[in-house]
Amino acid sequence: MKGYGPIDAMEYPRFSGIRTFMRLPQVQDLAGVDFAIVGAPFDTGATYRVGARFGPEGIRSASALLRPYNPSLDVLIFETLSGVDYGDFSVVPGYLPESHAKIAKQMEPLLEAGVTPIVLGGDHSITLPELRSVANKYGPVALIQFDSHGDVWDEYFGGKDTHGTPFRRAIEEGLLDLDRSSQIGLRGPLYEFLDIQQSRDFGFLVFTADEMRQVGLEVVV
Amino acid sequence: MKGYGPIDAMEYPRFSGIRTFMRLPQVQDLAGVDFAIVGAPFDTGATYRVGARFGPEGIRSASALLRPYNPSLDVLIFETLSGVDYGDFSVVPGYLPESHAKIAKQMEPLLEAGVTPIVLGGDHSITLPELRSVANKYGPVALIQFDSHGDVWDEYFGGKDTHGTPFRRAIEEGLLDLDRSSQIGLRGPLYEFLDIQQSRDFGFLVFTADEMRQVGLEVVV
Amino acid sequence: MKGYGPIDAMEYPRFSGIRTFMRLPQVQDLAGVDFAIVGAPFDTGATYRVGARFGPEGIRSASALLRPYNPSLDVLIFETLSGVDYGDFSVVPGYLPESHAKIAKQMEPLLEAGVTPIVLGGDHSITLPELRSVANKYGPVALIQFDSHGDVWDEYFGGKDTHGTPFRRAIEEGLLDLDRSSQIGLRGPLYEFLDIQQSRDFGFLVFTADEMRQVGLEVVV
Amino acid sequence: MKGYGPIDAMEYPRFSGIRTFMRLPQVQDLAGVDFAIVGAPFDTGATYRVGARFGPEGIRSASALLRPYNPSLDVLIFETLSGVDYGDFSVVPGYLPESHAKIAKQMEPLLEAGVTPIVLGGDHSITLPELRSVANKYGPVALIQFDSHGDVWDEYFGGKDTHGTPFRRAIEEGLLDLDRSSQIGLRGPLYEFLDIQQSRDFGFLVFTADEMRQVGLEVVV
Amino acid sequence: MKGYGPIDAMEYPRFSGIRTFMRLPQVQDLAGVDFAIVGAPFDTGATYRVGARFGPEGIRSASALLRPYNPSLDVLIFETLSGVDYGDFSVVPGYLPESHAKIAKQMEPLLEAGVTPIVLGGDHSITLPELRSVANKYGPVALIQFDSHGDVWDEYFGGKDTHGTPFRRAIEEGLLDLDRSSQIGLRGPLYEFLDIQQSRDFGFLVFTADEMRQVGLEVVV
Amino acid sequence: MKGYGPIDAMEYPRFSGIRTFMRLPQVQDLAGVDFAIVGAPFDTGATYRVGARFGPEGIRSASALLRPYNPSLDVLIFETLSGVDYGDFSVVPGYLPESHAKIAKQMEPLLEAGVTPIVLGGDHSITLPELRSVANKYGPVALIQFDSHGDVWDEYFGGKDTHGTPFRRAIEEGLLDLDRSSQIGLRGPLYEFLDIQQSRDFGFLVFTADEMRQVGLEVVV
Repeated sequence: MKGYGPIDAMEYPRFSGIRTFMRLPQVQDLAGVDFAIVGAPFDTGATYRVGARFGPEGIRSASALLRPYNPSLDVLIFETLSGVDYGDFSVVPGYLPESHAKIAKQMEPLLEAGVTPIVLGGDHSITLPELRSVANKYGPVALIQFDSHGDVWDEYFGGKDTHGTPFRRAIEEGLLDLDRSSQIGLRGPLYEFLDIQQSRDFGFLVFTADEMRQVGLEVVV
Repeated sequence: MKGYGPIDAMEYPRFSGIRTFMRLPQVQDLAGVDFAIVGAPFDTGATYRVGARFGPEGIRSASALLRPYNPSLDVLIFETLSGVDYGDFSVVPGYLPESHAKIAKQMEPLLEAGVTPIVLGGDHSITLPELRSVANKYGPVALIQFDSHGDVWDEYFGGKDTHGTPFRRAIEEGLLDLDRSSQIGLRGPLYEFLDIQQSRDFGFLVFTADEMRQVGLEVVV
Repeated sequence: MKGYGPIDAMEYPRFSGIRTFMRLPQVQDLAGVDFAIVGAPFDTGATYRVGARFGPEGIRSASALLRPYNPSLDVLIFETLSGVDYGDFSVVPGYLPESHAKIAKQMEPLLEAGVTPIVLGGDHSITLPELRSVANKYGPVALIQFDSHGDVWDEYFGGKDTHGTPFRRAIEEGLLDLDRSSQIGLRGPLYEFLDIQQSRDFGFLVFTADEMRQVGLEVVV
Repeated sequence: MKGYGPIDAMEYPRFSGIRTFMRLPQVQDLAGVDFAIVGAPFDTGATYRVGARFGPEGIRSASALLRPYNPSLDVLIFETLSGVDYGDFSVVPGYLPESHAKIAKQMEPLLEAGVTPIVLGGDHSITLPELRSVANKYGPVALIQFDSHGDVWDEYFGGKDTHGTPFRRAIEEGLLDLDRSSQIGLRGPLYEFLDIQQSRDFGFLVFTADEMRQVGLEVVV
Repeated sequence: MKGYGPIDAMEYPRFSGIRTFMRLPQVQDLAGVDFAIVGAPFDTGATYRVGARFGPEGIRSASALLRPYNPSLDVLIFETLSGVDYGDFSVVPGYLPESHAKIAKQMEPLLEAGVTPIVLGGDHSITLPELRSVANKYGPVALIQFDSHGDVWDEYFGGKDTHGTPFRRAIEEGLLDLDRSSQIGLRGPLYEFLDIQQSRDFGFLVFTADEMRQVGLEVVV
Repeated sequence: MKGYGPIDAMEYPRFSGIRTFMRLPQVQDLAGVDFAIVGAPFDTGATYRVGARFGPEGIRSASALLRPYNPSLDVLIFETLSGVDYGDFSVVPGYLPESHAKIAKQMEPLLEAGVTPIVLGGDHSITLPELRSVANKYGPVALIQFDSHGDVWDEYFGGKDTHGTPFRRAIEEGLLDLDRSSQIGLRGPLYEFLDIQQSRDFGFLVFTADEMRQVGLEVVV
């Protein structure tokens, strides 16, 4: 193993131990870390179902079943990468701007340390502060978005910040490199025709779910 | 919007409001109505699982998520059609003939008004009184039935009216235009060979699930 | 029946029909109405579990089982009262101050019409705009609060408006008649001793759950 | 053990084996049998929730946990009694009169053999054919009914046979010894005052739930 | 019907009766029996999820829906075969070697009688005592294993007998005819590369899930 | 706060963060620790329901709601005690003696450090290795057992070690101070009279559930 990796499954069966992601060590010191799992337990941006604040807990619980070897790709993850569970970002439930500011701020030490953050949501609004942090450090970001909806609305119930608007805000703030960004899997039902067209107008390479079925997965890739 | 349509989702988020179908207005006056959603909360005809009397409630609850634009067909429903939720038909739980008679009777004002009824079941026996009403007004009906079983049995446990017999009754009463009717998706396990053969003998164009896989969806269409 | 009351359960079995509260008619015209059920599907003020935005739907669904006669009190509700289901208040999910303002505003026509509103929540923060409306019309309100926590915190995660703070805000704004208000059922676990003491300091008559068990229900009443 | 009793739990752990009641042998020959468990998987008489046709299966599944010694009564059941699982009565789902006739008929061999039947329901309408069989053999029956509702309505949705009417029918047919019958636990909400009064008028000794709380369990016994 | 078969579904609706497999008679006398369903309610060999001891009960419950005619194969099972439900094997929960010995022993009368046993698990470790019984009578067995993992590990947590090791033990004991055995559907995530390679090294014809998708189901067959 | 205590709930809302017990820090260094939560995720000793290996995870998840002040006792836990989450003991699923030995061994460093262990089960068999460790260090233990069954059987299915036998083993090994031990809440159904009597014969002060109801909670205390 290269650095940090999961606890030994032959000594501690996978159903045992505190539920970190994939049973990685809980570590805040980022020296020697390649990637860090971090939760953003926030759902105030959700306009229909809420509860994604319990998403990081649920993903961590299920991840106990993950094993380190992927036979399709012939990769043993932790021979090449060192990974940790960094815990959760602090958020303020019910207060979206404050939470977004806190998430963006807490992204910084990870990026400073050269660690790749893998953020467990949380509703889709949390992508915006993540993009702000990354673009602030590296410049506009190439985005590959797998989603049923483009989430480029201008507002929702009069609110500029919900899970339906983050990518419009990201475009307005210049956070995205739209020449190299794509939205994949858009589908209905929608509110209107514009829901998909405006993604194309912004410059995204768009594959709707219908189009994906027609051209096949290889073409999309 | 042409006439009746859903409540404004930007003013009333989709999780709010009384659960009519797709949050359409609850209306009994059929003037200016193109289609009406109506529930038939009846399950006395079911010979295994019961509970479909709560089906209309369940469908209405889930329908809160529907949006009016279908991007595959490029259709904004309520620009061309006016729809309402008409409520539920009155039925008598435990009393099948009485309930069938009541359902057929209650179909009439909808048909008289030229409104297309979309009936939420309910077990499959409710199709019979619906066919009776429609055939009574328009003559024999072309039926497109998506089902795992043909439901053309003569009787079930000695009873002539269950969810396994409605289309045999419909044929006997001359309600169907069998030259233009089809049963699609029949499959096992069944009680005997005859279960599929008799549908063909009655004149239905039948595609079993096995046949659909072989010829493909385009051929079936 | 005096005025509005439930749909006839002998004609429409209780499992049928659109799910209004107790199957009362959905009515916005308040003439001749004594009480109105109204939903406040809002949960942005909740700091742990969310989902109470689906509370009004759940309560309405379960209320189909209610019958109009209470044998303990020997009361036939709708011989003396006329009641309706008024629908839900409009709210803005994720935006607490805006939602509180909208709820307070929408309370007004009910109070103007002399109708007693019975509001289905929703997280506990919605009590604040209700108290604002009532106190604005009638002056300080005598509050009987059944709760495990007093919800008189000053703030929560730095926020002044959550489900833990509405009664502190109400006191600050002079909305309560504290000489005639009571908090009943307070219990642990809590964060600190002050959680109960400050309710008494504000002037509430407090019965903790421990005290209720000791003195008995009759004394509390 | 006196005669038939459960399979040996030390040889076959209680989670194993086919789910008969309490893991008693499935026996139709009634020689040497004191009591027989029998299912009446019928729910067509239910006017709200259905599904009690799966009741006997559910009770049998849970009964695997039962053990033969009751320490409160100091009784080892199968040292004094021989019991079997007789299986289920045949019924016709959706057809109440036919099913009642079949249940009454199938009660007879049990009563002929002097076996005490313990019938697992099923909705409350099945009590009527049971009373018919027992009264037919032994004369009017003393009934001890634990129930929230008296089920002595005359009809329900115009139907004379539902789960709300069996004891009215039983009284009309002279099946009950009303001088020695009791209804215990009646409570609301109800449709009207008469719901409890008519039970008293028929001659039942009635304890409502309110009265039970006042006089205590010992007085009721 | 040739011999034993399911109870008549027209007399006893499929939701009724004690839950044997497919409502076959519970029979221990094997004369005239072609196949016997038998449960092995054992899960002590499971290293992650337990509960398969309730597997036979669950399968029997669901099997009530099975009907005797398969239209794809045009086969009426019980015209050519006589089948029974033999009940469950006795096991000792928490004691794997003892349970394996008991299962192997209880397989013998079935094999002696020329009956084909169909065993409902139970965790995968129960396959080992079954193979021991069959190989003891007929010699090495051709195995067709549909599985996501090969279960040919040497040990697991230091234990030689778990649900991950039965086929290694079977090979060591010479129970398998490896020239005619196959493992189909192996996939990740795994612990290491060896997990699949060792199945091939032992001589199994292996189709991973990836390979099945590439070559198609017909080639695998 | 005296030493280790929960993470700040005002900075990290209780739904966030990795699920340790009560959100205590995960610490293996026992210096300055008064009590340690530790999981024993083991269920091979269970003779009916299994799954308690997921018990520590479930308890930790629910414990996120605990707050540090108990108003009935007027205690702020972490002003007087320093507590940590020590993680889970290593066990070998399916191997009871090996797991018991490992649990007993892993108890030692906690006892050596003078830390009070609070062990989250797991099935009841895990109490035996805990008692072995404690008695080995401190001598015979006074046991206060809240349980529906005494768990003093000699064996179960021929096995000496299951969740029904640990206290018989403990007595045989001299681990208990029976003059100061009690079993509280014993109740039925049981297998035989002896199930309760033998607890008294061994010297336990026994209160059955029936007796507790008669004498009241104060007398038991």
